Amino acid sequence: MTETIRLGAVAAARPDTEIIAITPSWGPASVEGFYESFIAAASMLDSLTTYKGKFDGVVMAGFGEHGREGARELLDVPVVDITEAAGHMASLLGHRYGVVTTLDRATGQIEDSLRLAGLMDTCAAITSTGLGVLELEESEEKTERAFIEAGREAIKAGAEVLTLGCAGMSGLQIRMAKELGVPVVDGVGAAVKLVEGLVDLGLKTSKIRTYAYPLDKARPGWPVSEHKK
Amino acid sequence: MTETIRLGAVAAARPDTEIIAITPSWGPASVEGFYESFIAAASMLDSLTTYKGKFDGVVMAGFGEHGREGARELLDVPVVDITEAAGHMASLLGHRYGVVTTLDRATGQIEDSLRLAGLMDTCAAITSTGLGVLELEESEEKTERAFIEAGREAIKAGAEVLTLGCAGMSGLQIRMAKELGVPVVDGVGAAVKLVEGLVDLGLKTSKIRTYAYPLDKARPGWPVSEHKK
Amino acid sequence: MTETIRLGAVAAARPDTEIIAITPSWGPASVEGFYESFIAAASMLDSLTTYKGKFDGVVMAGFGEHGREGARELLDVPVVDITEAAGHMASLLGHRYGVVTTLDRATGQIEDSLRLAGLMDTCAAITSTGLGVLELEESEEKTERAFIEAGREAIKAGAEVLTLGCAGMSGLQIRMAKELGVPVVDGVGAAVKLVEGLVDLGLKTSKIRTYAYPLDKARPGWPVSEHKK
Amino acid sequence: MTETIRLGAVAAARPDTEIIAITPSWGPASVEGFYESFIAAASMLDSLTTYKGKFDGVVMAGFGEHGREGARELLDVPVVDITEAAGHMASLLGHRYGVVTTLDRATGQIEDSLRLAGLMDTCAAITSTGLGVLELEESEEKTERAFIEAGREAIKAGAEVLTLGCAGMSGLQIRMAKELGVPVVDGVGAAVKLVEGLVDLGLKTSKIRTYAYPLDKARPGWPVSEHKK
Amino acid sequence: MTETIRLGAVAAARPDTEIIAITPSWGPASVEGFYESFIAAASMLDSLTTYKGKFDGVVMAGFGEHGREGARELLDVPVVDITEAAGHMASLLGHRYGVVTTLDRATGQIEDSLRLAGLMDTCAAITSTGLGVLELEESEEKTERAFIEAGREAIKAGAEVLTLGCAGMSGLQIRMAKELGVPVVDGVGAAVKLVEGLVDLGLKTSKIRTYAYPLDKARPGWPVSEHKK
Amino acid sequence: MTETIRLGAVAAARPDTEIIAITPSWGPASVEGFYESFIAAASMLDSLTTYKGKFDGVVMAGFGEHGREGARELLDVPVVDITEAAGHMASLLGHRYGVVTTLDRATGQIEDSLRLAGLMDTCAAITSTGLGVLELEESEEKTERAFIEAGREAIKAGAEVLTLGCAGMSGLQIRMAKELGVPVVDGVGAAVKLVEGLVDLGLKTSKIRTYAYPLDKARPGWPVSEHKK
Repeated sequence: MTETIRLGAVAAARPDTEIIAITPSWGPASVEGFYESFIAAASMLDSLTTYKGKFDGVVMAGFGEHGREGARELLDVPVVDITEAAGHMASLLGHRYGVVTTLDRATGQIEDSLRLAGLMDTCAAITSTGLGVLELEESEEKTERAFIEAGREAIKAGAEVLTLGCAGMSGLQIRMAKELGVPVVDGVGAAVKLVEGLVDLGLKTSKIRTYAYPLDKARPGWPVSEHKK
Repeated sequence: MTETIRLGAVAAARPDTEIIAITPSWGPASVEGFYESFIAAASMLDSLTTYKGKFDGVVMAGFGEHGREGARELLDVPVVDITEAAGHMASLLGHRYGVVTTLDRATGQIEDSLRLAGLMDTCAAITSTGLGVLELEESEEKTERAFIEAGREAIKAGAEVLTLGCAGMSGLQIRMAKELGVPVVDGVGAAVKLVEGLVDLGLKTSKIRTYAYPLDKARPGWPVSEHKK
Repeated sequence: MTETIRLGAVAAARPDTEIIAITPSWGPASVEGFYESFIAAASMLDSLTTYKGKFDGVVMAGFGEHGREGARELLDVPVVDITEAAGHMASLLGHRYGVVTTLDRATGQIEDSLRLAGLMDTCAAITSTGLGVLELEESEEKTERAFIEAGREAIKAGAEVLTLGCAGMSGLQIRMAKELGVPVVDGVGAAVKLVEGLVDLGLKTSKIRTYAYPLDKARPGWPVSEHKK
Repeated sequence: MTETIRLGAVAAARPDTEIIAITPSWGPASVEGFYESFIAAASMLDSLTTYKGKFDGVVMAGFGEHGREGARELLDVPVVDITEAAGHMASLLGHRYGVVTTLDRATGQIEDSLRLAGLMDTCAAITSTGLGVLELEESEEKTERAFIEAGREAIKAGAEVLTLGCAGMSGLQIRMAKELGVPVVDGVGAAVKLVEGLVDLGLKTSKIRTYAYPLDKARPGWPVSEHKK
Repeated sequence: MTETIRLGAVAAARPDTEIIAITPSWGPASVEGFYESFIAAASMLDSLTTYKGKFDGVVMAGFGEHGREGARELLDVPVVDITEAAGHMASLLGHRYGVVTTLDRATGQIEDSLRLAGLMDTCAAITSTGLGVLELEESEEKTERAFIEAGREAIKAGAEVLTLGCAGMSGLQIRMAKELGVPVVDGVGAAVKLVEGLVDLGLKTSKIRTYAYPLDKARPGWPVSEHKK
Repeated sequence: MTETIRLGAVAAARPDTEIIAITPSWGPASVEGFYESFIAAASMLDSLTTYKGKFDGVVMAGFGEHGREGARELLDVPVVDITEAAGHMASLLGHRYGVVTTLDRATGQIEDSLRLAGLMDTCAAITSTGLGVLELEESEEKTERAFIEAGREAIKAGAEVLTLGCAGMSGLQIRMAKELGVPVVDGVGAAVKLVEGLVDLGLKTSKIRTYAYPLDKARPGWPVSEHKK
């Protein structure tokens, strides 16, 4: 999964942008629901806390997942989450956009994420394939057909642009766009471009209030990855 | 801190309600900001996942902190977060309510939490003491005066009821109410009463969509507390 | 009707809570629409003005009906209306809730009531049985089936929890919950628990602005019940 | 009071419009707060129910007062409340408008009324003179100065047009407009023009759902005015 | 088209109101979409800039079209756009209103216009006939049937009153109202009544901030109509 | 002015991005207010209609100005307006952002533009220097000090990031950021990066509904620039 996302990011990035893909060292391999999203958020923050390399910006590649505000506190380089990235880009391409995701249970979580990012005003609908996890794994073709169907439903509800409500499905946006006749935004690509843009402009996260650096204090057992050693 | 909160909960609870206070086994002792909030959310979910005892409901006692939706997924008993509990109760007592918290950096996080709970429509203001962590620890009297001042500011902005935007300050709500002449709601007490009420009515968390149980699958290194042993 | 509501309240109340049911002495026996709701609001305020007994809180048991703010002015004990009580409780149990009511004409009135209570953000739908008054009286079974159907419609529109949009149908919430697989909140029970909670916490209505006591002045012909004698 | 309002209505009306001023036969002479507003709403509906004359439309002349939806149910001729009338007219004259009222306690009630009428999006502020009832009666000059001061506050908060948040102060709008350099809308005049306009266009209240006629049934003791005889 | 609109305005106006209909001297004869709407806005402002006659108010008769705020800057007499006029009037006649327009592409533009006028809170739906321009011209009967169908859809979505989302179809509102059993507001008539009302009350556009007069400066090539000569 | 904006765009653009700056051939040289904004919108659309060269995307460089939706209809390449570009970028850098503009009269227009772009939810304040046009031209230093002061006001109102509410002041954002300690986004740079990003991703404007191509029909006198010849 991480490799697929990395390839999608590389495909979107400019030649002179280096993409470093990091997989959190603990927690669920994929995130379905709030419970796993909060675990993954901590694990992702663990990775960012312990990462020794240098980087100019962060793309958070879990659609509808938590943690972006924590990363903004920890770092000063731009942090862009694919959920909001797709929403910002889509808002420029049509009067209203829609999000198409896999599991029905994810729509509430995605709505929450968009609401906090201020992106529900231009969102016409969040639709899902209605497929379960097993069905999604069963057949790529079935999944694709289900995504196209859910896209149609979003368009009927007023969407003129779609965003792909998941990561790691690189290429699907192109096939959906072709079939449905609307632009389809992949959040990974959108986030890469937004980070590149912010870095080019020399813009960093504001540190004056909400995203001020974390306080310097003991946090027993944290980061988890270091305490497990 | 946990003990103070436990005492506040016991004071609010009915005689036949047993309060079991759980301190997460890893992570920050206190939460200031998003970074720590996301760590604490995972640690809290770890505690809920590994707890062997029985219970009828959960009070999440970190004001403005994350994780309530994850707990709702994991369990079917009612889960009530003190941020929303205080807001729901306060909405019944005045035309608009205000939240008074400690650090200025927390106001954005509290606003996010209330927004997702659907409680910003009746919220007139979220004000803070403007004191730093060190100042807050310096003198209880200074802190109390600062809270009263911040309460005044919220009232000026339209609040007719206040909620105490932090846990572990049991008793402060009574002194503030006396000084300012408005009801002041402590989230811990409010959440205890809401959980008692929901349990009495036999109401549990809906499992049909957003809060369906987490999928059954491997999550390497999780729960953290078990893997550290 | 009053007796049915009283029994529902007693069933929800703690053993040490005494329920006193009051029927307004004039006006419509049941309320359908705004015209009757405003009449009933005045009649209810008449009852509260002239009631000689003591009480610690008030449950207003007309779903979507007017007058709660007037009672909050008149008294300082907590006043909780079943419309808002059900909404507050339901908001804790699912991502979005729905209201199921009897007559189609009531949905606008209920929406107004929820909007003023700040409860429309988490409300996914207000649906009705579509039955007329006569049909509702015809057969309990038909009514129940219609409620279940309207509940299904609300769930399809995004509701994960339902509230029963009427009083005096005690027991229906249990059958609906069983049939639909979602929690169903009866406003009377919810309001009883909220009043009990507020009383336990020693919280009363704010008197500093909107709900300050009515001015002391002559109101010819008021209270109506005393002038009719 | 009724006479002053009648004169204001006559001044605004076209020569061929006949103004009939009705004072409710019971309840408070003036309305300050929710308690009195709900009593007055019932009394006003009583007057409309028992009035034997003919009329083409209704102006409800209590600013921020209840009952308009009840009157819309009872009748099919247009019913326009001065609160909303002033807001609709003011929205046409500036980017945002403000409301200036007498008592501080009334601002919440006015906000509720405007919110239900869909008029809060263009409302920048609701300010009050801060004077008590006694002070208001003390001196007309003092009241006028206080209104102008409250108008200034609303303008500072973004208002470019003002509405007079009370009835029976005919003429004040002209002096305020002169002093503050902004249009000031008197709700009575605005409502008269809106009713005239609706009547000219042959438009009546919709009867298909929310404002369908009240059901035909017994309402013991109602109308109050007939039962007192 | 201009003549049809003029006749509609005359029919709505009082006998002592003189209607002067102005057709912009350049640009599209009819407006379909944003591109033409912005051209027409400039052309309309050109007409207002160069018009030598006297007038007491302006009705802008392009439904969902741009420019009203520019006209408010240029003039001090009341400027009322038919989009907002219909919305204000309709808000007085039912709990929610709907807009029925011709082309599907226009719904977004109309929504924008209503949103800026603060009229989306009471708008339940904006529906369209779904017909293309050619089909609309083909047969009046077909168009009328399509309008009635779109009206039905809006009513199903919660509308209790309709507004006619186009100009120059005078009379259609009467046939729709008859067929659908709801009031249907024609924006031209509504705007005429609102301008008459504002003029009667001596109210003019606020000049203190947003609609202050345009600055006095050179604008090469403007007004276009004078430079073409 | 155009040259300054061009230089700002070039500074933000990647080396392989060619910037072509176009000045509309008629209308006001600078835009202050709605009247000029609507004229400039038509003139800008004229330029886009008659431009013979090739381009991959459009940056509309008038802050708070009209016409973006018209350009989206006319073209299929991405069209990004600096008002929304700055808002989208700023939303990624802080919890709330603020806009600082020159003239007080512009704040309403900017608010409208942001509202339609769905960017008011994360906007804490739109403040202005309060200076008149003449004062702005008087002294660069005075203007800069006024901008910094207005920035402080926005920060006090909750902004953690600022956007520069005007074009053609390249460099000011850097000095403001330094002085105020917050990121300051220049819309021109932000829009260039967003267009570059959209072009890289192969994304174009949706043509299925609101932004479908203008109909093919005669528009007498249009484009103005060709008819003047």
